[in-house]
Amino acid sequence: MDTAQASWKDKLHEIIYEADTKAGKLFDVLLLVTIVASIILVMLESVPTIDAVYHNFFNIAEWVITLLFTIEYILRIICIKKPSSYIFSYFGLIDFLATIPKYLSLIMGGTHALLVLRALRLLRVFRILKISRYIGESNKLISALKASRPKITVFVFAVMILAIILGTVMYLVEGNADSGFTSIPRSIYWTIVTLTTVGYGDITPATALGQFIASIVMIMGYGIIAVPTGIVSAEFTAQNNTIANNTKACTNCGTGKHKDDAKFCNNCGDKL
Amino acid sequence: MDTAQASWKDKLHEIIYEADTKAGKLFDVLLLVTIVASIILVMLESVPTIDAVYHNFFNIAEWVITLLFTIEYILRIICIKKPSSYIFSYFGLIDFLATIPKYLSLIMGGTHALLVLRALRLLRVFRILKISRYIGESNKLISALKASRPKITVFVFAVMILAIILGTVMYLVEGNADSGFTSIPRSIYWTIVTLTTVGYGDITPATALGQFIASIVMIMGYGIIAVPTGIVSAEFTAQNNTIANNTKACTNCGTGKHKDDAKFCNNCGDKL
Amino acid sequence: MDTAQASWKDKLHEIIYEADTKAGKLFDVLLLVTIVASIILVMLESVPTIDAVYHNFFNIAEWVITLLFTIEYILRIICIKKPSSYIFSYFGLIDFLATIPKYLSLIMGGTHALLVLRALRLLRVFRILKISRYIGESNKLISALKASRPKITVFVFAVMILAIILGTVMYLVEGNADSGFTSIPRSIYWTIVTLTTVGYGDITPATALGQFIASIVMIMGYGIIAVPTGIVSAEFTAQNNTIANNTKACTNCGTGKHKDDAKFCNNCGDKL
Amino acid sequence: MDTAQASWKDKLHEIIYEADTKAGKLFDVLLLVTIVASIILVMLESVPTIDAVYHNFFNIAEWVITLLFTIEYILRIICIKKPSSYIFSYFGLIDFLATIPKYLSLIMGGTHALLVLRALRLLRVFRILKISRYIGESNKLISALKASRPKITVFVFAVMILAIILGTVMYLVEGNADSGFTSIPRSIYWTIVTLTTVGYGDITPATALGQFIASIVMIMGYGIIAVPTGIVSAEFTAQNNTIANNTKACTNCGTGKHKDDAKFCNNCGDKL
Repeated sequence: MDTAQASWKDKLHEIIYEADTKAGKLFDVLLLVTIVASIILVMLESVPTIDAVYHNFFNIAEWVITLLFTIEYILRIICIKKPSSYIFSYFGLIDFLATIPKYLSLIMGGTHALLVLRALRLLRVFRILKISRYIGESNKLISALKASRPKITVFVFAVMILAIILGTVMYLVEGNADSGFTSIPRSIYWTIVTLTTVGYGDITPATALGQFIASIVMIMGYGIIAVPTGIVSAEFTAQNNTIANNTKACTNCGTGKHKDDAKFCNNCGDKL
Repeated sequence: MDTAQASWKDKLHEIIYEADTKAGKLFDVLLLVTIVASIILVMLESVPTIDAVYHNFFNIAEWVITLLFTIEYILRIICIKKPSSYIFSYFGLIDFLATIPKYLSLIMGGTHALLVLRALRLLRVFRILKISRYIGESNKLISALKASRPKITVFVFAVMILAIILGTVMYLVEGNADSGFTSIPRSIYWTIVTLTTVGYGDITPATALGQFIASIVMIMGYGIIAVPTGIVSAEFTAQNNTIANNTKACTNCGTGKHKDDAKFCNNCGDKL
Repeated sequence: MDTAQASWKDKLHEIIYEADTKAGKLFDVLLLVTIVASIILVMLESVPTIDAVYHNFFNIAEWVITLLFTIEYILRIICIKKPSSYIFSYFGLIDFLATIPKYLSLIMGGTHALLVLRALRLLRVFRILKISRYIGESNKLISALKASRPKITVFVFAVMILAIILGTVMYLVEGNADSGFTSIPRSIYWTIVTLTTVGYGDITPATALGQFIASIVMIMGYGIIAVPTGIVSAEFTAQNNTIANNTKACTNCGTGKHKDDAKFCNNCGDKL
Repeated sequence: MDTAQASWKDKLHEIIYEADTKAGKLFDVLLLVTIVASIILVMLESVPTIDAVYHNFFNIAEWVITLLFTIEYILRIICIKKPSSYIFSYFGLIDFLATIPKYLSLIMGGTHALLVLRALRLLRVFRILKISRYIGESNKLISALKASRPKITVFVFAVMILAIILGTVMYLVEGNADSGFTSIPRSIYWTIVTLTTVGYGDITPATALGQFIASIVMIMGYGIIAVPTGIVSAEFTAQNNTIANNTKACTNCGTGKHKDDAKFCNNCGDKL
């Protein structure tokens, strides 16, 4: 257990899985650069004019990145004590999926579907961020969103039902007006586009009645957009208050987060 | 009154109207599946390419669902003590309207207008949700929205007046510019599309003055969208505070607004 | 001063200017109906297809409304003690402007510009609302908005400067791309359309660089829309807190709005 | 050090750099007018129809403004004790960049790129505003935004990753549908346009699956737009509370957070 006894496996583990040493930090930075480079490659490759010129370069670069990811994946398995705990973990699966697309293209041919796998490499970024996560503000963000989840779920469900009913009504009103409301699913799509205030304009009401109903839908969307905002705002405000109250801690039982004007601990009754 | 004396009517009542027994829960799940299936049918039927192929299947499936709803509706009337209290209740009317569209189509022919009746079946979902409602968060959502209602009403009214005046101004400015502002109602429709930040782009100002006024309308819309959000946020924040505070009061000194997990009064140290 | 001495002028004053008596309420309702009718007339008249059929009816109806408004205006002047205090008041001017458009059309011909005057009739609605205003919630809304005004002004000013700079940048980038950015004012119009998340799509970036900058502008708009919402939310929350605290009032000096846990009046020091 | 000994340099310094004297205020107003005029010139010059007529006037006016800015820049350097502290300060650089575009156009020809330099003149406005800033509300705005910065950064980063993954998915789904998703960068541009609820409509999904995914993206955008709003709202609420609370503390019992208009401590009744 002593560091003197640390084998090369332990050292490798420290470099790859942790970020406390210089080598560990360097590894993280290199990994980040490789991930970002691989994503930029995916993007540029999809632009026809660029791909026409640099097709060979993209092919070679993708092989280089795939090899680097393969080496990293093997090293990760070697230097961990229980390989299965890594392989079937969330990040283990992401790492695996990030490595295989180019190998799969040998078998399946360069299908478009592999692009999504390659885009998923971006999720690997979270591994590197995870380390600094506790310093950052993302924890607060996530806990506020988690606290809002039940309310948000109810809300999304209500919006869905509203969209289906309003979509059916608009299909009836505009269905024959040659204005894009050709089926109920398309009308529901329009309703969501409108309720969320996105408003593409690819489908727009053409009849007077349709425009009147659309106006009502928009004003409803106004009110509706206030709901998730209100939920999240209240959650952040509540969180801020909790943090502000955090200063007092009971000397007897250690309970924190007392109210500002508390004179006695609300857990053990000891005077604060 | 003893459960031993419970007739088949009482048992049926328990299954259909309540969700405490296994059979009751199963009934609710089956009902939910039927409702969702009927809605998906309505949607798919409206897509011309799908309807062309499966028209007969859709017809038969709609008859099956109609028969199931008919049986359920009759059972609901039979097993309740005062049938009229069900028939004329909110959900009684919804159930009736959900059942009749196919029968009506025999008399009136398959008119489009019946589609809305069929879409209203979705409202039946709320009956099943109602049961679990008290566990969920929808109560909080609804009470926050109810508390905001008077403010929201005043707000919607003010937006309406603003839309009419701005719409008239835009009609004057853009009326001759061949840019879609062909009448005041259409200009009002444009104003609402703009104020709510939906922005379809089916009608857009073409003159320099029109674009200048539109810019002002948009920045106003910016400020205006803040109002319902602010109202609802404040309501949720108030609700969060109330919930956190209301639950406990010290029996010794009467101090209230203790934290949810408080075991001792934070004013006098007495056990809660 | 006794009601027995009340002349017909006093009675008329009570009917027209107040809403406490039955006759006064009836007068308000009739006035509201006339105003709304006159606005609907203005709207329908602007629709070419409707105007073609009902042109004569609209002409006569406008004369009837003008005569009713004229009679009301004269009565308001007669039954008040100081006519000048009415004529030059805010509502006196609105009433005058609401009455004259048809007379002006005799002199000037039926120019479009008179439409705005006729749309301003809508402002008369506020007179009737004013009475019930103190019961409603509009006071709270208005005071929250007033408290937010200095912050909102600073904010709108900052958005303006941002729009001008970003508009100039987009003009440079997209100016030659035949994508609608034909001049800086038009580019500024596009920036405002984008920052406010309205997004008509009448002008959209066509070059890759333009789309990249547009993406940044949109994410900025995201953050920016949070500012007025945040300001108004905080104002409403503050207002709610004040209202919640309103219950305690000092028995000695009558000062209200004490904090919930106050034991002594914060104005006179008397025990609460 | 006495004002009697103040040389003309000191007087000039007072006029140019400060706003306490009458002359200083006049200088600021003149500077503001010149800046605004120069910006309006830049805008109008970019409109082809206006530039065709007034090209010579714009040229002369730009020279006049450039000369005024040159004189001001030289005076600023002369009347300050340490010229380098001004030249390399934030505003010193802005002033320099605001002065040179016309001179550069002599060397480089009237390239479009100089337009941005001319638009940057707008930043000079902040110098004049800086003086009244402490009176205004911008400080509160800025401090609330600063406090929100770490959360906003995390948020923008998360939106970016989401946009890249969703953009890739949409490229796969819609890539062959001739609906504008011609490359991944363009699809990412579409995702940002949709998530931010801008919704131009220059690129819209055409397939049923694409519209389904787009609907999900929009509802996500709904939830996502709530996050920055919630962050900023909570920050403003916290700030409001801090301001209301921080000012007073009882000298007898030490209770703080008294109301702004409190004259006596609400805990012990002692005069504040």
